[in-house]
Amino acid sequence: MRVFGIDCGTEFTGYGVVEMDHEARNPKLLHLCAGTIKLNKKETTPQRLAQVYAELIELIARHEPDVVAIEEVFFSANAKSALKLGQVRGVAMLAAATCKMPVVEYAPLSIKSAVVGYGLAAKEQVQFMVTRLLELDEIPKSPDACDALAIAICHIHTAQTLTLQGATR
Amino acid sequence: MRVFGIDCGTEFTGYGVVEMDHEARNPKLLHLCAGTIKLNKKETTPQRLAQVYAELIELIARHEPDVVAIEEVFFSANAKSALKLGQVRGVAMLAAATCKMPVVEYAPLSIKSAVVGYGLAAKEQVQFMVTRLLELDEIPKSPDACDALAIAICHIHTAQTLTLQGATR
Repeated sequence: MRVFGIDCGTEFTGYGVVEMDHEARNPKLLHLCAGTIKLNKKETTPQRLAQVYAELIELIARHEPDVVAIEEVFFSANAKSALKLGQVRGVAMLAAATCKMPVVEYAPLSIKSAVVGYGLAAKEQVQFMVTRLLELDEIPKSPDACDALAIAICHIHTAQTLTLQGATR
Repeated sequence: MRVFGIDCGTEFTGYGVVEMDHEARNPKLLHLCAGTIKLNKKETTPQRLAQVYAELIELIARHEPDVVAIEEVFFSANAKSALKLGQVRGVAMLAAATCKMPVVEYAPLSIKSAVVGYGLAAKEQVQFMVTRLLELDEIPKSPDACDALAIAICHIHTAQTLTLQGATR
């Protein structure tokens, strides 16, 4: 199973691709790629949205995931920033739909639980565990890319748990 | 000048196309079309966003406007509904960008001022004036389509005012 994680933001949108190789002797998580789409502040909003859309479409098509995982938004922000974030999020979901990809959403609490084992874990703990689970040499430089990897890991762990639960019934 | 107005909503997205014929002896506003994109509640959010996107692209391409006008959002709503509205708005702006259309935004106050002459006008007054300015036989059945027409009229009036101001300088 290959998962394309997206961490939407109005300035930086992180992405990360993680795979679980079930065929291997010791199934483990594989880090395929991660990065950040940086929006050009000089552009108009429609042009910035067109940039995110085009880059996501290209990335999703290149990595051929089975599913796209997006973070559910945490509503501490005010309505104005929620609207702006929503605009990016809408375009990210559209990019997934355009690529005929199913979209799954996870709340921040679920992501932290799945990655660290504790829903209220600090950002640093999440970064540490992502680095460890994916056997990376160092913590990803972009926190947004790291969050996107965490979302992808969350989906793989959740899907595994559901499969195991199904198997024991 | 032909304007494609969009009134974004999470359930219904209204659109309306208005033209100002400057070549005519007595320049006046022409109502070209108006309608509503109704989102299928049974679909997932990505699929609904894909529906809005596809329909807007098709409508914009068919009517060949010079500009797309969208309402700036009024922040009375909470962060959750602002995020959902933002998702639709992002896709609408993307549709305009995909069609290489410039996008202009107007606040509700500006729209009411331009259409009724009073920024705090009631919805019914806006509907009445849209019907009158476009010489329609009756008030548009869909309030969302009517709002979209109001946004388009607002842009035409604003552009006219700016042109007149430029001419007198």
